[in-house]
Amino acid sequence: MNIDMIHAAARRLAGHARRTPLLHSPFLDRVAGRRVLIKPECLQRTGSFKFRGAWSAISAMAPQVRARGVIAFSSGNHAQGVAHAAECHGIPAVIIMPADAPALKIANTRAHGAEVVLYDRATEDRDEIGARLARDRSLTLIKPFDEPQVIAGQGTTGLEIAEQAAATGIDRADVLVCCGGGGLTSGVALACAAHAPGLRVRPVEPQGFDDVARSLAAGEIRRNSALTGSICDAIITPQPGDITFPLMAAHCGPGLAVSEDAALDAMAQAFLRLKLVAEPGGAVALAAALDPDADLPDTVIAVISGGNVDPAMFARALNREQPA
Amino acid sequence: MNIDMIHAAARRLAGHARRTPLLHSPFLDRVAGRRVLIKPECLQRTGSFKFRGAWSAISAMAPQVRARGVIAFSSGNHAQGVAHAAECHGIPAVIIMPADAPALKIANTRAHGAEVVLYDRATEDRDEIGARLARDRSLTLIKPFDEPQVIAGQGTTGLEIAEQAAATGIDRADVLVCCGGGGLTSGVALACAAHAPGLRVRPVEPQGFDDVARSLAAGEIRRNSALTGSICDAIITPQPGDITFPLMAAHCGPGLAVSEDAALDAMAQAFLRLKLVAEPGGAVALAAALDPDADLPDTVIAVISGGNVDPAMFARALNREQPA
Repeated sequence: MNIDMIHAAARRLAGHARRTPLLHSPFLDRVAGRRVLIKPECLQRTGSFKFRGAWSAISAMAPQVRARGVIAFSSGNHAQGVAHAAECHGIPAVIIMPADAPALKIANTRAHGAEVVLYDRATEDRDEIGARLARDRSLTLIKPFDEPQVIAGQGTTGLEIAEQAAATGIDRADVLVCCGGGGLTSGVALACAAHAPGLRVRPVEPQGFDDVARSLAAGEIRRNSALTGSICDAIITPQPGDITFPLMAAHCGPGLAVSEDAALDAMAQAFLRLKLVAEPGGAVALAAALDPDADLPDTVIAVISGGNVDPAMFARALNREQPA
Repeated sequence: MNIDMIHAAARRLAGHARRTPLLHSPFLDRVAGRRVLIKPECLQRTGSFKFRGAWSAISAMAPQVRARGVIAFSSGNHAQGVAHAAECHGIPAVIIMPADAPALKIANTRAHGAEVVLYDRATEDRDEIGARLARDRSLTLIKPFDEPQVIAGQGTTGLEIAEQAAATGIDRADVLVCCGGGGLTSGVALACAAHAPGLRVRPVEPQGFDDVARSLAAGEIRRNSALTGSICDAIITPQPGDITFPLMAAHCGPGLAVSEDAALDAMAQAFLRLKLVAEPGGAVALAAALDPDADLPDTVIAVISGGNVDPAMFARALNREQPA
């Protein structure tokens, strides 16, 4: 895993993934007490950065292998990213989803042309179903984060941040990244280390699910004690990856953790000030950026990693008493 | 008023206004039964295209005149655009607003450093208050649409659309523009006529407030019979402008009108499929684009002109029964 792979991924993604802008709002700067720039990956195709990694992985496959199709386990943003990237390549995609996944996510994944295989979380073994399907149909598994070509794809976000920060005259800042398994965080960190060494990448997680922050502090992989019970479902993973963790340990600053209320407030601010739709897990980096008491430098760049949120959850964020 | 003024405005806006992207979604294409590209000016600074015209007008003023300050009448997007453009130029701005304007809009305008002068719609004469202030303080009035440098600024949206359409391989399409007084519509039409003659600009208005469509059909200016009672407040004006109308008559195709329900549905689709916040008046062009029965070509480009919507109105759009 190295910077050349990110450059190669950027060439494969050119004209396919969106180059998202770097936004700012004087209102947000005032709330935060610092300069806040926003990289809105909610505007990426399929509504999250996951499309980059999926496209990178699929476009890097040997044509005859790719033609047989891909498979992924996901009930969320990775599912839609893989399904749409496969659809665009004209190859089959099978997505294994729990039968109790939100109907909209199942429908979206199917609408991207993927075959959705549902399993019962209580009685069936997801991995076994996936392994059998992969074997029977010679499908290639696209892992959600611990896979070099996926990390390379997510890292293209970091190349753009490095270029856009330089164009804005920023050579020193913390880059806050919503962090689950660390695919996006490690890719962005690798890109910034190579191209913008004054930009320090820091993972942001929900309080109580801060396995990456604790792993970075301990110098070794630590697990989350719980995997459910957060509204930030998109970024809840058991532990950092075997590939992503060493990259983050080498290149990232300390992790940050924010409350669910702070994530909801950040969603409301993104609505009011940026006209963007962020999902709870996609808003944690902005939440950290907007906290005037956070230990952060004068300038921060916050990635909004996704916007796939149900109307009811979005309304919950808008209906909160607005802070300031 | 000519294309050279739009080019000059583009040079003045470079590095100050955002170059908004051109987005699309396969889901929206399916709803519409045609290819739909979206120019999201809700992502423009201050949340609407109005910042372009305000910046263009203020930056075109002679420095010694500009230094004395500007004045505008507006309770909405023009107020915020002028206030912020003035703030960035370091000059005073006075915005005359009705005392019953939404508190958030008054607060936002003040937060951009403008002096807000409130008047009572029932007992006070807005124009008289404005004329007195302008005279006493030598302020320059920035009109919302019927002003060449404002039209030139809005027209930079059209230059970007022409370039982005060409880069996407589109040389023939209808460009649907949310239309109030016609500043944006006439500017975009002028830009497309000069640089992308295969792009035909068409104004879109709310049903019952389609003064521009009727004026274009009649070949002369027609007024709206009502000026209140629409949720699309941002684009309700008495009649097309004396400068904007001849430009639209020369360069635009027939106007379109959409229902309020269609505008709300388009807001929900922008939320779900684009992760964008659109206000009702800013969503009418997208509403027309998504209507499978509309008389439109295979490819359309719809401008989302603004996103300054209250949470309650946004929730109303999200809570509607979703079509398809």
